[in-house]
Amino acid sequence: MTVLETQGLAAKHAARILAVAGTSAKNAALEAVARQLAAHSGEILAANRLDLEEATGMRPSLVDRLTLTQARIDSMVEGVRQVAALPDPIGAVTKMETRPNGLIIGKRRVPLGVIGIIYEARPNVTVDAAALCLKSGNAVILRGGKEAFHSNQALVRVMRDALEESGLPRDCAALVMDTSRESAAELMNLTGYLDVLIPRGGAGLIRSVAAQAKVPVIRTGEGVCHVYVDSEADLQMGAEIIFNAKCSRPSVCNAAECLLVARGIAADFLPVAKAMLDTKGVELRGDPEVRAILGESVTPASSGDWDAEYGDYILAVKVVAGPEEAIQFINGHGTGHSEAIVTSNYFTAQRFLDEVDAAAVYVNASTRFTDGFEFGLGAEIGISTQKMHARGPMGLEELTSSKYVIYGTGQVR
Amino acid sequence: MTVLETQGLAAKHAARILAVAGTSAKNAALEAVARQLAAHSGEILAANRLDLEEATGMRPSLVDRLTLTQARIDSMVEGVRQVAALPDPIGAVTKMETRPNGLIIGKRRVPLGVIGIIYEARPNVTVDAAALCLKSGNAVILRGGKEAFHSNQALVRVMRDALEESGLPRDCAALVMDTSRESAAELMNLTGYLDVLIPRGGAGLIRSVAAQAKVPVIRTGEGVCHVYVDSEADLQMGAEIIFNAKCSRPSVCNAAECLLVARGIAADFLPVAKAMLDTKGVELRGDPEVRAILGESVTPASSGDWDAEYGDYILAVKVVAGPEEAIQFINGHGTGHSEAIVTSNYFTAQRFLDEVDAAAVYVNASTRFTDGFEFGLGAEIGISTQKMHARGPMGLEELTSSKYVIYGTGQVR
Repeated sequence: MTVLETQGLAAKHAARILAVAGTSAKNAALEAVARQLAAHSGEILAANRLDLEEATGMRPSLVDRLTLTQARIDSMVEGVRQVAALPDPIGAVTKMETRPNGLIIGKRRVPLGVIGIIYEARPNVTVDAAALCLKSGNAVILRGGKEAFHSNQALVRVMRDALEESGLPRDCAALVMDTSRESAAELMNLTGYLDVLIPRGGAGLIRSVAAQAKVPVIRTGEGVCHVYVDSEADLQMGAEIIFNAKCSRPSVCNAAECLLVARGIAADFLPVAKAMLDTKGVELRGDPEVRAILGESVTPASSGDWDAEYGDYILAVKVVAGPEEAIQFINGHGTGHSEAIVTSNYFTAQRFLDEVDAAAVYVNASTRFTDGFEFGLGAEIGISTQKMHARGPMGLEELTSSKYVIYGTGQVR
Repeated sequence: MTVLETQGLAAKHAARILAVAGTSAKNAALEAVARQLAAHSGEILAANRLDLEEATGMRPSLVDRLTLTQARIDSMVEGVRQVAALPDPIGAVTKMETRPNGLIIGKRRVPLGVIGIIYEARPNVTVDAAALCLKSGNAVILRGGKEAFHSNQALVRVMRDALEESGLPRDCAALVMDTSRESAAELMNLTGYLDVLIPRGGAGLIRSVAAQAKVPVIRTGEGVCHVYVDSEADLQMGAEIIFNAKCSRPSVCNAAECLLVARGIAADFLPVAKAMLDTKGVELRGDPEVRAILGESVTPASSGDWDAEYGDYILAVKVVAGPEEAIQFINGHGTGHSEAIVTSNYFTAQRFLDEVDAAAVYVNASTRFTDGFEFGLGAEIGISTQKMHARGPMGLEELTSSKYVIYGTGQVR
């Protein structure tokens, strides 16, 4: 047995105990995790400093994500307590009926089992993912980026001690200690131990996991999102929505990457939109029609721009004939994440909702709302862009499976 | 583009039309399929005869599965009409709420998209799977065994003509014309076109698909199922349940493969059970305790017997200390399909339901009930033994995904 298989087996055993642990026991463990993380913040910050010392040459935005402070630890602790306060999804019987032969058949919500999380250098994911898995009764194997190794090791050690203190198995949460590429590949192929693998991070990580993994994967967070401004739109509303969708936080997956504008209002709308986007210095990459209207200051779009997830203050802009072309373009170039139309026409709105194939389809609102908290799920482990199992923001319920429980009195068939 | 990619793209386009086709249009297409299958039964039977002529040296049970008769075609036709009569799962809004910012967020049930089905030499699967996919708004790419190629070709041609006649795209259902191993491998890796791949057939096929596929797979129909007869069981009920679970149809996945007996009643129970199983000539493979009770006529079990899916009149038999050992053994050797306990003890029953990790867990009933019709789903595309997406019998709802539809009035974040 490899080290990872040994961890997998331990997680599987822990998962069986956790699956039947009950809400009070899980909440007590989460409270112990919160308390111990707060009590050991000095040790965690010291470990984080080791990571930061080794982070020479790292981009400032990545260093920022890697950095822990007392305030950030406080916020992690608060996050764990918020997860404890959420309703427990496990044990609910979502339907139950008595069949003609007298069998009583119920469908009970149960944990998935063992969940693997592969992520990059964000230590907050370590605590956040562990808390969500614990609350939903799943054991978790965490495989964070090597840049955050010391921080993750300290965080997981504290959490495992807290689990043990609360009477649950330490192995409900485990960290992959080998941060090589080989260990990531092994985790992706740990069939027989992992029930699901969720990659959290950039598009490169997610595609690599989806391409290599033999265990079931939930693809999350790939977002080439569009805003289509229809010829019957309120132009001011259209400009405010694309401005918000692009600029409020360009690095996240629900930010817009492409603006589609109906030909009928392009000459009126584009200057209004550009004036707002200019205030944030957004680089526009337009097709010839856009450049004919806005001028040569707009970069000519190349074919790669129509499929790009910039994650930055860059926006592709294209003129389309109307809703039909917009829908076709979105279904051809989108990643099935979040798509929006701005229109005052009822029928055009309904058609867009029906025909656009994405996790979240908006009428007259910014794509930036696709998020577990905004959708009222109370928490989020990621935003699924696949259709199997879960689609859109994934909360605690999306970390569960089901089991049929059947009460008989001797029935045979 | 390869032939299969071309088929995949055509299916994807057809799926977009089918997704918004509406219940009446889908039911009309199913009725046309039923009518045309009936009208072309002569042509279908002739194609089937070609397959049968080439089936020299095939096992009789496989020849039987391959053979079509007028009665079997009638039964296919009836099956299609039954699917048409089922409620349409698509379009239901399973929850909807107004958020504090005024956004109205609904979760709408939508089709998965394009479903691939890989199966063996059973022409009835061709029609059955196509009907279920059509009703649930999904395009389907069928890849049947080469032994049934002529039959499948005839069936799919008739169905595509019927689709066209009813005004839906022919490409809502397509057959992979190349029945080589290479084409199967290509289908398993048709990412970008297939949303889900469902293998239907023996354990070998399912494992091979799960191991090779890059597209999301739903594993179905692997069944190493147990019946545990507790020390507090009604022994007559226990014997009837294991007899039914083993003998009513040994080839199916919900048939029992292993009998576990509590030590306290083994000497009383095993002779009763054996007497019933003997009437069907069931070969028992027992551990030393079982052989000590039942005698040397019982074959000694080897370690492989504890994980075997016999699909035949063979039963592994083992004595265990009690429920705890039974649960551990089942969780270690079962495939997570269907597991049963026979007991009169309330607490033991509840513990078994809680701790056994399987799609369907029974108290005092035969494992043979795990089936979409018996569970009241009205239809079944297979029985999922995985935890992601769906678990247990899969009906029309399990062939769907969801889409969030969001109605705004200009909200930005």
